[in-house]
Amino acid sequence: MAQHNAFYAQSGGVTAVINASACGVIEACRRHSDRIGKVYAGHNGIIGALTEDLIDVSQESDEAIAALRHTPAGAFGSCRYKLKDIETHRAQYERLIEVFRAHDIRYFFYNGGGDSADTCLKVSQLSETMGYPLTAIHVPKTVDNDLPITDNSPGFGSVAKYIATSTLEASLDIASMCATSTKVFVLEVMGRHAGWIAAAGALAGRGEGEPPHLVIFPEVAFDRAAVMARVEASVQEYGYCVIVVSEGARYEDGTFLADSGNTDAFGHRQLGGVAPTLAGMIKQDLGYKYHWAVADYLQRAARHLASKTDVEQAYAVGEKAVELALDGQNAKMPAIKRTADAPYDWTVEAAPLAEVANREKFMPRDFIREDGFGITEECRRYLAPLIQGEDFPPFEGGLPKVARLALHKVERKLPTFEI
Amino acid sequence: MAQHNAFYAQSGGVTAVINASACGVIEACRRHSDRIGKVYAGHNGIIGALTEDLIDVSQESDEAIAALRHTPAGAFGSCRYKLKDIETHRAQYERLIEVFRAHDIRYFFYNGGGDSADTCLKVSQLSETMGYPLTAIHVPKTVDNDLPITDNSPGFGSVAKYIATSTLEASLDIASMCATSTKVFVLEVMGRHAGWIAAAGALAGRGEGEPPHLVIFPEVAFDRAAVMARVEASVQEYGYCVIVVSEGARYEDGTFLADSGNTDAFGHRQLGGVAPTLAGMIKQDLGYKYHWAVADYLQRAARHLASKTDVEQAYAVGEKAVELALDGQNAKMPAIKRTADAPYDWTVEAAPLAEVANREKFMPRDFIREDGFGITEECRRYLAPLIQGEDFPPFEGGLPKVARLALHKVERKLPTFEI
Repeated sequence: MAQHNAFYAQSGGVTAVINASACGVIEACRRHSDRIGKVYAGHNGIIGALTEDLIDVSQESDEAIAALRHTPAGAFGSCRYKLKDIETHRAQYERLIEVFRAHDIRYFFYNGGGDSADTCLKVSQLSETMGYPLTAIHVPKTVDNDLPITDNSPGFGSVAKYIATSTLEASLDIASMCATSTKVFVLEVMGRHAGWIAAAGALAGRGEGEPPHLVIFPEVAFDRAAVMARVEASVQEYGYCVIVVSEGARYEDGTFLADSGNTDAFGHRQLGGVAPTLAGMIKQDLGYKYHWAVADYLQRAARHLASKTDVEQAYAVGEKAVELALDGQNAKMPAIKRTADAPYDWTVEAAPLAEVANREKFMPRDFIREDGFGITEECRRYLAPLIQGEDFPPFEGGLPKVARLALHKVERKLPTFEI
Repeated sequence: MAQHNAFYAQSGGVTAVINASACGVIEACRRHSDRIGKVYAGHNGIIGALTEDLIDVSQESDEAIAALRHTPAGAFGSCRYKLKDIETHRAQYERLIEVFRAHDIRYFFYNGGGDSADTCLKVSQLSETMGYPLTAIHVPKTVDNDLPITDNSPGFGSVAKYIATSTLEASLDIASMCATSTKVFVLEVMGRHAGWIAAAGALAGRGEGEPPHLVIFPEVAFDRAAVMARVEASVQEYGYCVIVVSEGARYEDGTFLADSGNTDAFGHRQLGGVAPTLAGMIKQDLGYKYHWAVADYLQRAARHLASKTDVEQAYAVGEKAVELALDGQNAKMPAIKRTADAPYDWTVEAAPLAEVANREKFMPRDFIREDGFGITEECRRYLAPLIQGEDFPPFEGGLPKVARLALHKVERKLPTFEI
């Protein structure tokens, strides 16, 4: 069969395992060298395609590509950039076709979350609406776990494991100190719209009184009096109180607890600082000494504590993406399907991208406890398998060893293009 | 020889490996059962001794004690409580003697930092000034690495490994994102008076331009203009800037950055936290999009990423403490002595407690780079061995397995005592 080249790029907020998906895509492409020639990685996502800023992955050794599996973040650079509609921004799509044609690219793999699925869906229309023969596959990734159809999103299991572990460890710390010092510990976690990551913090405890004593979800309107009552009860009963709070925590009227006023490139509000805000309220209302932590990038970059399940799934969706592409299944996303809870089992199936793009999956209401401050057994059953297993990276000199790529740029063939 | 009981307690801020020292003390005591009867742990440090709130460690299984080696924080409860002088607070010392006599305690092991060394030193005077036959040994512990005489403090190596690893991982994250999104990442680390932990962040990078691009030490007066110039240069040259900042960062006049009443770019009063304060300044002065993290308790509780060197040293000083006590060496502290840099080697020697208590070890000026924003090769040579080796805890259900102690209380024999 004819041999053509492939394009792979990373988009949106990176994760501890997005490079494991890159590894899955690239290794699968190398196994199909009869049909896939070179893999060109877009430097900084779709921008690399638009600006013809391509990395020649064929120059990377097998060892370097294998090392991607244990390297966090996006080795080829990611971007926050969403393609506009074909109708209004036809020039961008024509440019993509020019670039793809110039480099004989017929396979397009886009590794990202909801916004990136939308971009991938638009690119997938090139073949139908503009006649360029391209197969576009979206490779799912997001720590937010908010992609629909797939049972969970690669990237989430590792951040969940990190947050559950950190909550457990910090809880032991404050439990040691509470007799004469800190009474309240607040850990702020990611998850702007959905409380999946906050829910993972609840995995740290199980029995009555085990921390965290409160989880504050974006799905449940923040009620200061109710939260304070619960904090006070926890300190009275257990001597201390551990709180996991989502960055997306908000009041009834939708105002975020900590709205910094910044917006990112997609126009989303940039949040930060819920933990100090909430800690300040607790000091003000109850007078307790507090500590707070904001994990921020640490949580989504923590490859050193990745979930083995997550690493395997991230690799598997990358590998499956190539199979789907070679099978000519345009506009698809490999989705994880849970086939059993205990012991946990899963498989990867193709989902239509049109059903994925621009849809967010929220926590089911029955995953949040009646009182709004914890998770239900059903939620625990869903979450627990996703943090299973360890997949420690190799260490060198006391630090995790990461892939060092050559990142050879492909020679440009076209005039420059302003985006 | 006569058999007497031992007292062991934990004091001050806990660490990822203070329980490894507890394990070292208790296991060594068990090996010397001919001379040491029971080990009584003070519940919440010295307060447990004063209030006769004792835990009977003999009720714990060998397995539970062994598990302390991989359990973070203080299993017996810690305290922030410093004994006053014997001259002015004689009643407290008489009470200690009463409690020790009632429970036949002749060995006293106190596991803590500088303030705790002072308490231990005061207790050690019981035998000389008040005639009660007690041998008191201080077991060193502090994430701040500010104890004198000992080459390094158990607890520091693990927080150093955690901060170096987290800096490395988060740097890969922002490097992926900087083309279209976040340009500056600020990580706030512990170390109110000494920049040891901040210095450890610098281990993440080595070559020219490798992050972190700035380390901000408490030892170097904060100069806003100089910092901003460096941040801008880093973003211009590398596309992004990673900053590790000590919570103790301060202006020339000694005012802490976090206490300086700063407002962020939007006029909001900062609620505390050097990282958000500094990030706000950067936004205001340079306009860059930022992310910030405050590791807080996460860094010192992160047993999942402990340094193997640190775990071994923490255990060794606990074990040595018992040997010194049995040798009748009152008022001593087992100190770590570095015998070689490469390959790193160390031994444990007895140091006089009087030379340890109430003295802080600061970073030598020649450990900080001339420009004040990084570490020297000498500092790197000192720090590098301390983060060597991994000692992952066992995991169960995706989470670190921790010691579950029975914590049987010893029956009280004395009237209550108000502290």
